[in-house]
Amino acid sequence: MPVNLSAPDPSRLSPVSGIELGTARAGIRKPGRRDLLVARFAPESTAGAVFTRNRFCAAPVTLARANLQACGQRPRALVVNTGNANAGTGTAGLDAARRTCAAVATVLGTASDAVIPMSTGVILEHLPVERIEAGLGEAIADLKPDNWAAAAEAIMTTDSVPKAASRRVEVDGKMATITGIAKGAGMIRPNMATMLAFIATDAAIVPDLLHERVGRIADASFNRITVDGDTSTNDTLLVVATGRSGARAGAGSDAFFAALEAVAVELAQAIVRDGEGATKFITVRVERAAAEDEAAAVAYAIAHSPLVKTAFFASDPNLGRILAAIGYAGIADLDVDGVDVYLDDVHVATAGGRHPDYQEADGQRVMKQSEITVRVVLGRGAAATTVWTCDLSHDYVSINADYRS
Amino acid sequence: MPVNLSAPDPSRLSPVSGIELGTARAGIRKPGRRDLLVARFAPESTAGAVFTRNRFCAAPVTLARANLQACGQRPRALVVNTGNANAGTGTAGLDAARRTCAAVATVLGTASDAVIPMSTGVILEHLPVERIEAGLGEAIADLKPDNWAAAAEAIMTTDSVPKAASRRVEVDGKMATITGIAKGAGMIRPNMATMLAFIATDAAIVPDLLHERVGRIADASFNRITVDGDTSTNDTLLVVATGRSGARAGAGSDAFFAALEAVAVELAQAIVRDGEGATKFITVRVERAAAEDEAAAVAYAIAHSPLVKTAFFASDPNLGRILAAIGYAGIADLDVDGVDVYLDDVHVATAGGRHPDYQEADGQRVMKQSEITVRVVLGRGAAATTVWTCDLSHDYVSINADYRS
Repeated sequence: MPVNLSAPDPSRLSPVSGIELGTARAGIRKPGRRDLLVARFAPESTAGAVFTRNRFCAAPVTLARANLQACGQRPRALVVNTGNANAGTGTAGLDAARRTCAAVATVLGTASDAVIPMSTGVILEHLPVERIEAGLGEAIADLKPDNWAAAAEAIMTTDSVPKAASRRVEVDGKMATITGIAKGAGMIRPNMATMLAFIATDAAIVPDLLHERVGRIADASFNRITVDGDTSTNDTLLVVATGRSGARAGAGSDAFFAALEAVAVELAQAIVRDGEGATKFITVRVERAAAEDEAAAVAYAIAHSPLVKTAFFASDPNLGRILAAIGYAGIADLDVDGVDVYLDDVHVATAGGRHPDYQEADGQRVMKQSEITVRVVLGRGAAATTVWTCDLSHDYVSINADYRS
Repeated sequence: MPVNLSAPDPSRLSPVSGIELGTARAGIRKPGRRDLLVARFAPESTAGAVFTRNRFCAAPVTLARANLQACGQRPRALVVNTGNANAGTGTAGLDAARRTCAAVATVLGTASDAVIPMSTGVILEHLPVERIEAGLGEAIADLKPDNWAAAAEAIMTTDSVPKAASRRVEVDGKMATITGIAKGAGMIRPNMATMLAFIATDAAIVPDLLHERVGRIADASFNRITVDGDTSTNDTLLVVATGRSGARAGAGSDAFFAALEAVAVELAQAIVRDGEGATKFITVRVERAAAEDEAAAVAYAIAHSPLVKTAFFASDPNLGRILAAIGYAGIADLDVDGVDVYLDDVHVATAGGRHPDYQEADGQRVMKQSEITVRVVLGRGAAATTVWTCDLSHDYVSINADYRS
């Protein structure tokens, strides 16, 4: 059961002028479910993307990176399959990804390197590219602007609900729309991007600026979530700007980029809310660190600790586990007497131990909530960061012990 | 259920001349169980120790380090309590540890700084030192050389079986005995030592040599195991040499130090075999790395991945999860085409993908075993390392969601 997250209301997902989406049931892994998505972008669309830093990156990641460069950040289409990650597949996998892009290019009448591929699913198995080719006709026939909800559904794997978000914002005196979809529930600790997110806007953004901002936005959203600490082989965030609204977003368009970031954060948080087996949504905020890296190291030590995560699952204010995680986060000169820890508004630890006013009942009250903020004040400097994560439950084990069967 | 590990046969634990052990039921956390251990060391005994690197280290760790130095590595006693870690307890915790040592020193007629304290159990709660004081009489009355099995039992927390090991080895023309005990099942990713291990020998070893060798031995044993990646606040390994056998172990006594290391490895592996919820014992061997640090980073990425650990639990040869972990282990210039992965004798991955001869049935056969070796050959250099770990099961979640209740 996702934490305070339900399927998006299709009527609240604004179509983005210049973007059409179509889905198909291609039977890639299992018959009968939508597992193929094609999106067509208007001419003149620009794009920026960030990809996984996993060295065993998937063939579609390698090809997407190459194609985006080859087409001068002006792609014309996106093709996504679920059920098979096309990762750990060697040169045969790269050939399969190329064949997929070529097939899409042929039916859409565009260049092969203007097609951005994404895949998600099982690793180390060959992509059944002939099923993708056979399903393309159905997806192309389905292309339409108000198809975001179906698109969000077509990219799911172990997700329990589709994930989509939409904003409208004024930029350059005109209204622009931003709509995005994402998928992911396990193998989630993105590094420079997450497991498949696609965000589109009808604002116009020059390629260099878009490239720079997509990196920054990923750092503030998908790069700040973790479910299990496992960085996927396929993580990709693609942002496409069609320019069809006539609104031009420049370096000074703060409100626009804030809205773009808000969509990214909403999608990133949705991935955590739907984290495999999640019953709690946890915000870990680390403040007064000497540097942002240091803040992130402490936040991730807490967010990845199986002991902390099982204590959240149990609603048990076993705060010593949080202190232990802070202690092993790798800050060699940490003075534990200067550290303060809060659960929401409850001051639980200070001066190397339990806060004198802390009552177990107060900790218990916060731990029972479905949304909890752990705030750690290191007392070392001015840097801070936030990481979002979920708890570790029996269902996480069940989902991952049964996933392939 | 521990993996291929049963309670030690008391008759196979050789007493160590110069060491007496006594236990008591002090009711520190729960009534009726042995939770207090006192060990008395003969005069002239030398000792070496390594301690946790967790910055939130427990009060007994701080005091043990100070006392070992103050007594010139010639301690006369050890006192261990379970049920309370005396960690995250500030200055009051340090006072409680000092009071404990003083009480032991008084009844044994020795100096307070010749007493080494260890605590294990819940973090962030004050140590009920008066219960330890009240239980000391019972423990002292119980002091005897052939009490190792009871001692191993008295230091358990979530352990399901006591852990002890014993060896006899010839050194300097005389027979020496080495016997040790350890505890630990969760919050196990030792950094420079593990959650409470005590090894004694009746060989004579000068303090400087003992200090140096204990560090080396910890690196080859307790520093190579992980259950959940959580480095404890209390990890301590203490090795005491009484010299009572008349055997002198010097820098060239390779067979003796190999036997000492073998006892440490057996105890360290016993902790993994009894890892919380463990159903499989996994050896992760990384070879042909550019440096040992790099080998360890890859080994720990695999050993800590919740996805890899749940796949082991499911006996599912979902090898893509292992490749993904290698890929995110932080080797920026890793050429995945040069990596080979084996499950025991089965060659599963090569050249960035699945080995052409690999059959799922072969992987399945290995994954069903209770003991599995994952061997990763990086093809980058001559360094290698081994890490021992266990799988992640439903019982891990149950144990840690219920531990305090």
